[in-house]
Amino acid sequence: MRAAAIRTLTLDAVAAANSGHSGMPMGMADVATVLFERHLKFDPKAPRWADRDRFILSAGHGSMLIYSLLYLTGYADVTIEQIKNFRQWGAITAGHPEYGHVSGVETTTGPLGQGIANSVGFAIAEENLRARWGSKVQDHYTYVIAGDGCLMEGVSQEAIALAGKQQLSRLIVMWDNNGITIDGKVSMSDVTDQRARFAASGWNVLHCDGHDPVDIDRALTAAKKSDKPTLIDCKTHIALGHAAQDTSKGHGALTDPAQMKAVKELYGWTSEPFVIPAAIKAQWEAFGVRGGEARAAWEARMAALSPAKQAEFARIFAGDVPAKLPAIIRGVKKAATEAGAKLATRSASEKVLQAVNPVLPETIGGSADLTGSNNTKTADLGVFGVEDRKGRYVYYGIREHGMASAMNGMALHGGVRPYSGTFMCFTDYARPAMRLSALMGVPVVYVMTHDSIGLGEDGPTHQPVEHLAISRATPNTYVFRPADLVETAEAWEIAFTSKKTPSVLALSRQNLPTVRKTHTNTNMTAKGAYVLEEAVGKRQVILMATGSEVEIALKARDLLQAEGIGTRVVSMPSMELFAAQDEAYRRKVLPPGPVRVAIEAGVRQGWDRWLLGERGRDGKADFVGMSSFGASAPMERLYKEFGITAENAVAKVKAML
Amino acid sequence: MRAAAIRTLTLDAVAAANSGHSGMPMGMADVATVLFERHLKFDPKAPRWADRDRFILSAGHGSMLIYSLLYLTGYADVTIEQIKNFRQWGAITAGHPEYGHVSGVETTTGPLGQGIANSVGFAIAEENLRARWGSKVQDHYTYVIAGDGCLMEGVSQEAIALAGKQQLSRLIVMWDNNGITIDGKVSMSDVTDQRARFAASGWNVLHCDGHDPVDIDRALTAAKKSDKPTLIDCKTHIALGHAAQDTSKGHGALTDPAQMKAVKELYGWTSEPFVIPAAIKAQWEAFGVRGGEARAAWEARMAALSPAKQAEFARIFAGDVPAKLPAIIRGVKKAATEAGAKLATRSASEKVLQAVNPVLPETIGGSADLTGSNNTKTADLGVFGVEDRKGRYVYYGIREHGMASAMNGMALHGGVRPYSGTFMCFTDYARPAMRLSALMGVPVVYVMTHDSIGLGEDGPTHQPVEHLAISRATPNTYVFRPADLVETAEAWEIAFTSKKTPSVLALSRQNLPTVRKTHTNTNMTAKGAYVLEEAVGKRQVILMATGSEVEIALKARDLLQAEGIGTRVVSMPSMELFAAQDEAYRRKVLPPGPVRVAIEAGVRQGWDRWLLGERGRDGKADFVGMSSFGASAPMERLYKEFGITAENAVAKVKAML
Repeated sequence: MRAAAIRTLTLDAVAAANSGHSGMPMGMADVATVLFERHLKFDPKAPRWADRDRFILSAGHGSMLIYSLLYLTGYADVTIEQIKNFRQWGAITAGHPEYGHVSGVETTTGPLGQGIANSVGFAIAEENLRARWGSKVQDHYTYVIAGDGCLMEGVSQEAIALAGKQQLSRLIVMWDNNGITIDGKVSMSDVTDQRARFAASGWNVLHCDGHDPVDIDRALTAAKKSDKPTLIDCKTHIALGHAAQDTSKGHGALTDPAQMKAVKELYGWTSEPFVIPAAIKAQWEAFGVRGGEARAAWEARMAALSPAKQAEFARIFAGDVPAKLPAIIRGVKKAATEAGAKLATRSASEKVLQAVNPVLPETIGGSADLTGSNNTKTADLGVFGVEDRKGRYVYYGIREHGMASAMNGMALHGGVRPYSGTFMCFTDYARPAMRLSALMGVPVVYVMTHDSIGLGEDGPTHQPVEHLAISRATPNTYVFRPADLVETAEAWEIAFTSKKTPSVLALSRQNLPTVRKTHTNTNMTAKGAYVLEEAVGKRQVILMATGSEVEIALKARDLLQAEGIGTRVVSMPSMELFAAQDEAYRRKVLPPGPVRVAIEAGVRQGWDRWLLGERGRDGKADFVGMSSFGASAPMERLYKEFGITAENAVAKVKAML
Repeated sequence: MRAAAIRTLTLDAVAAANSGHSGMPMGMADVATVLFERHLKFDPKAPRWADRDRFILSAGHGSMLIYSLLYLTGYADVTIEQIKNFRQWGAITAGHPEYGHVSGVETTTGPLGQGIANSVGFAIAEENLRARWGSKVQDHYTYVIAGDGCLMEGVSQEAIALAGKQQLSRLIVMWDNNGITIDGKVSMSDVTDQRARFAASGWNVLHCDGHDPVDIDRALTAAKKSDKPTLIDCKTHIALGHAAQDTSKGHGALTDPAQMKAVKELYGWTSEPFVIPAAIKAQWEAFGVRGGEARAAWEARMAALSPAKQAEFARIFAGDVPAKLPAIIRGVKKAATEAGAKLATRSASEKVLQAVNPVLPETIGGSADLTGSNNTKTADLGVFGVEDRKGRYVYYGIREHGMASAMNGMALHGGVRPYSGTFMCFTDYARPAMRLSALMGVPVVYVMTHDSIGLGEDGPTHQPVEHLAISRATPNTYVFRPADLVETAEAWEIAFTSKKTPSVLALSRQNLPTVRKTHTNTNMTAKGAYVLEEAVGKRQVILMATGSEVEIALKARDLLQAEGIGTRVVSMPSMELFAAQDEAYRRKVLPPGPVRVAIEAGVRQGWDRWLLGERGRDGKADFVGMSSFGASAPMERLYKEFGITAENAVAKVKAML
């Protein structure tokens, strides 16, 4: 009857919403019941307890499974009213489980494959923290329920292979093997032997009857003893007991009243809709007692740590940076301005990490097989692996999507602060996970090097053109394109202190001059845009640029000033942060009147707001950038051929004056 | 010495460019030599011959392998001058192989995993055309060289599983198993048993010594006899013979003169750089003779077909539509205007396909497991599968990326015209392949339904917000957001007649009214934007909208006109096509003066150009749309809460008047 409580709550909520997915919670109710009853370490009274087991519903459309579990076990925010308001405006019980809305939801799922890929990050974070803090402080499992859809998505392979290589034995995936997708039987589009597939990547593979509590318990018990990650193939029936059982119709909203009545009778369920008999509710709530006891023991152990250690643990789980970070950033900036060196911003980023990583022990760096190009590895990190669980650098392999999704998982786990690199163009591969970083508000950092045609010979397949626009179009995302080491250090400072917003650092392959000539303690990048060079004489022109094109803007200014045309140069490392300034500041940086030209080796989309004025009346404007894909050639030639030059900027200015 | 010719050309070209990837062509030269010598059906004199075998270099960074092969076998466009200009401006020998630049390059590769995923589409096209036209007309193989990077990318799993399910026995993948990636040994990030992995998805798995011609030939011969797709595990040494052999250094540009000298000596190669001894060149050129004879035989068989069949075959490979298509589209439009029904544009799309598919036998539809939601399947198509190779609908499974990449492969193969659907939000999953559609200029059609918060309860994980901007930011991409069945038919007409540009159709889940009240034969969508309703009285306001928000714009116009405020409504189904009109037309549709409000349930980015005027002086403007992610609730509530209403548009207009 405990599992029936999940099934009937699901039916009732979906019927009330007249939308949703009934079949999956009905199919996996038995597995979930055994997990929560006998294995999962959780305490509804402390949903954010740092040493809880993590439970991830990768098949997020089955959201009523997790909402039912949270309501039944007594999470305070998941009331029966919330269940009744499933999928309604203002309810925390969204159509798919959303991190930050519901206390017991560890990650936002729904886009298939993301949960299982997040889980690898959860498990890496746990291994790493356990190694660094000891098993008295961190010692838990990550459990995942994944469906056929999760396993068909390519990102699952990246996750599986990474977990297998890393022997993440605390990761247990329960596969809801019901043989059904939306279009029909799984066999219509897949013949993969999933057990063999997981085994091929180094997993422990078990199976069970997903409706036999004893068999489920046996499999979970065995899984926890493995020295590898475990897949449990749970043979289940979607929409168990319902007229739509074992059909694709069973995947969706089962709202027919007569069929609902029949299946409730089959379950022996006699309560009114949304009513759980007190005895059954009490059984469910008792499951949390085990976790509560474990939490009390954990808190006693934590109290025995030194005050400094307790404070440090609290700090890393709160996502606070050490107090000395700003001074370190200021030091890097000051040295950079004084040295005035020519440096690629990817190398500038490495210099910042070299300074910061030693004082931020929570960072975990990585790269999708471009370590030497992304400059993400600093000497002190060590390499995370079976041989060194304390290592703080992950060789993710050629798996941008899995990497991004694992970073989300790490950040959601807490206690670590992940950053990782690939080429900017391969933002495309990581997009689904990057969007979820923004939607969930997790402050991961994407180190995207080779950020324009400036990468040269590798050609248009590797040259981002639309990718700045793509990231800028995404809500709650900081896109930084720093011009030199000073701005790079400022961007990293914002990225590391962000608590709710992911950052994309667009960094050059090619060397760039130091454009910030005067040191200031103020983080100018935090203003989004600022006056880098003021006009001499009457201000007739404003040139705006980011990153590698700031150098070009400065050259264009020299040419214009030589002709007596007063020209201001604005560096705009972050449009989002500039848009977040008050209007007075924005008008100060971009006053109406002067003609404006923006220079960026990407598409114009996104620039019009700053070129044309937010009200569209600021003056004449033009753009120097890309309107097509790039080409394969040395970078100097490409900039010339695509007209991204100081001379072209000057010509565009003069045509408007 | 034939393989040495590849190796030395590679070394010479990379040294001349001082960039590139030497190790892969050096490692796979023996495999490629055996393939071209004994198996590949190709004719350098007719690179586009429809029944040639397709050769795909999925590991595109090894581009000098394919350029060497094409030069050596005598493709006219690949001259030694082109080899000498490897990676230079204007050369066809780009850093990564680019479709359309070089006659023998079947697909653009470089972003890893794309080639192997394309190849599934090539093989599907071949199976389908062979079934429909007979093996006298279509009867060839698709050969792929893939590296470890291709196999680590998640999209490879989607491709492998789809090929296994479909038993694409004409697909043969040669895995360059050299154990090395950029970061070091493959084992640093992967322990996957690739042979077991492919076998788990229904592949025939073979292996060979990648440097033993006899063993390579044995494996290829066996592969061709299989009734399944075949993986050949080719054990190779990256940068064979070079000081950097078997190291990650060997992956990159090997330009050290002394080491080059040493390895050439090891090969027994005494020619000057870029010089191939005549005898060796002659051996290579002789390999094409086999293909030339096969082509002559094929041409004789084709000549025996009826003239109508010959013309039809030429038509589908030219990508021309039947002459009657325009009349069919006009018929759909006329009926739609007359009926004036309320209809979701995804259903409108289905109606168009129902009319068009019977007269376009080259279409191949599909969906990533959302057939009933994307409305992509029409009754006449049949289902492509082992049981019915003539079927024209593919159940791709939950594999948006693999689907998109397979569509690219089909379109590149020729003779078929693929379209497929998923939810608009999952553009994210398909992005890497969608970008390549645009870069290569292949006219595939992405049917992206559920195109806004209008999908309602599924919530923000499924609600596109930034995705119109993403596709619009991508060069050479048509983004259509039709408002009703009339515009949907017009958009499909453009998509089906496009030869060089992919199309994204953004379609609503929710019902929409017919907004085109008067029938016209002219394809108004082809103009990108047009006046849907003219102002009555003095034109004070222009409202612009797309798709589902055109209805809202019309309601806002009614409210404004009721107050005597003359208001024009512009429907803008395609920004790209509007931008492509001459300035006179654009000014006619959007004259300066009236205040402008654009209404679209997406982010503002991309709209400023039309709101603010291309010169930024057109007048006051505002935007009604999204500036955050969506939420889970019924759609009517969402539109109200996010302020995408006629009332809000009116308020914004009045604030500016």
